[in-house]
Amino acid sequence: MITKDHDKIDSLIHPRSIAVVGASDDPYSFGYYFIRCLLESGYKKRIYPVGRDSKAVMGIEVYPKLSSIPAPVDYVICCLPALRIPALLDECPDQGVKAVHVFSGRLSETGRKEAKELEFAILEQAKEMDIRLIGPNCMGLYYPEEGISFAEDLPREPGKIGGLFQSGGLSILFARNGGLQGLRFSKVISYGNGLDLDECDFLEYFACDDETKVLVCYIEGIKNGDRFMGALKKVAREKPVIIMKGGRGRSGVRAALSHTAAISGSSDIWNGVFRQTGAILAGDLNEAIDLAVTFAFLPPLKGRRTAIMGSGGGRSVVSADICEAAGLSVPPLTEKLKDVLKKEAPEISDWIGNPIDASAVLPFISFEEVLELFGESADIDFVIVTIAEAAPLFREEWRALNETRIDAVISFCQRREKPIVVVMGGGKIGLDQFEHWRYRCIAALRSRLVSARIPAFSTTAEASVAISKLIGYYETRPS
Amino acid sequence: MITKDHDKIDSLIHPRSIAVVGASDDPYSFGYYFIRCLLESGYKKRIYPVGRDSKAVMGIEVYPKLSSIPAPVDYVICCLPALRIPALLDECPDQGVKAVHVFSGRLSETGRKEAKELEFAILEQAKEMDIRLIGPNCMGLYYPEEGISFAEDLPREPGKIGGLFQSGGLSILFARNGGLQGLRFSKVISYGNGLDLDECDFLEYFACDDETKVLVCYIEGIKNGDRFMGALKKVAREKPVIIMKGGRGRSGVRAALSHTAAISGSSDIWNGVFRQTGAILAGDLNEAIDLAVTFAFLPPLKGRRTAIMGSGGGRSVVSADICEAAGLSVPPLTEKLKDVLKKEAPEISDWIGNPIDASAVLPFISFEEVLELFGESADIDFVIVTIAEAAPLFREEWRALNETRIDAVISFCQRREKPIVVVMGGGKIGLDQFEHWRYRCIAALRSRLVSARIPAFSTTAEASVAISKLIGYYETRPS
Repeated sequence: MITKDHDKIDSLIHPRSIAVVGASDDPYSFGYYFIRCLLESGYKKRIYPVGRDSKAVMGIEVYPKLSSIPAPVDYVICCLPALRIPALLDECPDQGVKAVHVFSGRLSETGRKEAKELEFAILEQAKEMDIRLIGPNCMGLYYPEEGISFAEDLPREPGKIGGLFQSGGLSILFARNGGLQGLRFSKVISYGNGLDLDECDFLEYFACDDETKVLVCYIEGIKNGDRFMGALKKVAREKPVIIMKGGRGRSGVRAALSHTAAISGSSDIWNGVFRQTGAILAGDLNEAIDLAVTFAFLPPLKGRRTAIMGSGGGRSVVSADICEAAGLSVPPLTEKLKDVLKKEAPEISDWIGNPIDASAVLPFISFEEVLELFGESADIDFVIVTIAEAAPLFREEWRALNETRIDAVISFCQRREKPIVVVMGGGKIGLDQFEHWRYRCIAALRSRLVSARIPAFSTTAEASVAISKLIGYYETRPS
Repeated sequence: MITKDHDKIDSLIHPRSIAVVGASDDPYSFGYYFIRCLLESGYKKRIYPVGRDSKAVMGIEVYPKLSSIPAPVDYVICCLPALRIPALLDECPDQGVKAVHVFSGRLSETGRKEAKELEFAILEQAKEMDIRLIGPNCMGLYYPEEGISFAEDLPREPGKIGGLFQSGGLSILFARNGGLQGLRFSKVISYGNGLDLDECDFLEYFACDDETKVLVCYIEGIKNGDRFMGALKKVAREKPVIIMKGGRGRSGVRAALSHTAAISGSSDIWNGVFRQTGAILAGDLNEAIDLAVTFAFLPPLKGRRTAIMGSGGGRSVVSADICEAAGLSVPPLTEKLKDVLKKEAPEISDWIGNPIDASAVLPFISFEEVLELFGESADIDFVIVTIAEAAPLFREEWRALNETRIDAVISFCQRREKPIVVVMGGGKIGLDQFEHWRYRCIAALRSRLVSARIPAFSTTAEASVAISKLIGYYETRPS
């Protein structure tokens, strides 16, 4: 469903050319930064640097003023000090500018009277000229399909995950860390103070955006509660919406005010928002990324019955505890499964249960066979596989064992309908571990899972919370 | 305070020689594994392999029987199948054996009558011979001071962290992952089914063990509730005791039963145990390690007033929220601090607060200066510094900025009494990131913090929960 409003914003983010105003050949300036990001991310259309100090930036001619560009400019990235924005806007209409991404900060977020007044004047001026603003105080747009980026080293191939971030730093972190876990993005928009285009405009845009299948938001505050509820309901009806809410406690509220001038509201209000709209709360960025991976890689889950393939007895016990605490169920093996086990592995069938500790059932029944049993069982909704990054095994053994298991998981995922996720640690490593076969091997296994679009979590706690929220979403979703 | 009982166990784990029974030159057998671990961890005293199949293991002569060893043997590591344990015990008295670590499993944890009976017979036989058992179904001992280890690649230099683990796999994971985060160990004992020496014996041992300043336990079940409470109270009076409790939910209880035959008890009972003893609950291994790092690296904290140095506005807001949710307070800057800021950085002093977003206050006031202000302030109990693994900065800039900040943190830590911790992500990386400067640099920074004994967490959530529990411990501790 594409609306007129959707089309309007969509046309803004498909510019035929981009001018970066405040361009400079100082590689540590933001006027250089945005140009390098556009070039590195493969932006194919025209880039016009505009600045006073340099003749060229990265080999591209610099124009002294916006108005000296000999062609229309659709989109401007403004890196000027805030006081110079009005003069820039004056030049925009004649150049055909439709949208200005105002990177510049130090406006209403400072809480100062003169800065607030300047911000208000900028808005009035832009409205009069029919120019839309993204920002101020934000990173703007990462849109891999168009080759537009706000950071280096982000995935260049497009995907189906959208992002709407009041914070610039978190928007970059989301794209970068999410990319590591296999997320690929439709577009991520960092909108800062939301002076003109705000969270509601963009939520309504994402509601109708067919390129986006899952939306992740970071929101500190909202200007218009009723409109926000409407917009959020609208987008949450269409696709899963994961929201990090910044400014929940007293100090967070204060911090949000000085970050993006946002009035962030109380926790109670926000809990009501989540309940009424079906949006999914994420406590921090890691959880938001885990949730996005879960929604992107797994189908709707039909129930909470978890089969756990453990690696080691203690870990299996703890995994079962953690899954139950997260609201999943870890049922005993059914008689049917027990019967199969009795035939396949009579020596252990009376003893093992769910979790099945892989280290205990081998060599009576293989990892692959256990997975197959789970795959066939109608009494199990999904499978969590734990891979041990430490076990009483030597290098070759450990590597071979875990490679075989990852092979089996990937093969299972390709052949079976039953959803499967992997828990594999190896997190807080120092420089020595970069030279160590063990951590290199874990990283290689993780890369294989990510390529196969199998969620790979660091802990059972992360996995079980994300999966439980996924199930809760489909349970309560108005169909 | 050293007791007789302490001396008894202490003498068991200071053997003058170790026999590994079930030794083999098959590098994938456990009879090979334990010998290699002893050699690699620098065990200096005599190792006697005992086995039927090989003449030598890693260059050490193999004896056909325990009784053919021409010298006394203090300690035996038994890798035989369970049915052969009684015959081994028969040979022990004449050889002078004081303790047998029974690695062998498939005993009472299988739930089978004949296995339970065998286990009981083994206990009776050992008692009669005055031989103490560690296990069965466990990894035994990691004791770096003595050069005894149950895994490869564990830290060889000793430290002050003790471990008491019912699970073998978790004991290895604890030593390995804890080692990465800078923990060094007095001794880690994996005791499995606890047939003879059990959790109570070892708790009482650790209570009096001067080599251990912080104890981490993984316990599935207990045999004698009253004695356990007494032992736990005793050790918790002497030093911080962090406990992971395995078997809290229904499925975990079932899994614990088949793992180590443990009756693990209800959550309610265990919550009472934690309240009454002052032991500290850890939800999973990662949290247990984070807590051990916090207790090992930080002094007793005097209060909950947190100063946050943020890296980016959104992250600062989220950090403040997360700290408050964990029970810390993030107070506004006091008038005194504001006055100093007014003098040092008049341009921003009315606007910034706590958290101080480092990206916003630069270039008006340096990261080092802000740290100094926190260091001098009597209104702040400790400092959390966030390092961004993503920011709108290029490689050289980012690296230089973060290296400078880590320098400042280390220098602060060395000069100031005020406790400081760092939050720095970069977790779920795949193989590509091992070649990437960014993740290599994060790993290098993490290594530097670990060397300086500054807690380095991956998320603010981890940091704030661990610190809050540290404070809670000192608040409620009977003095």
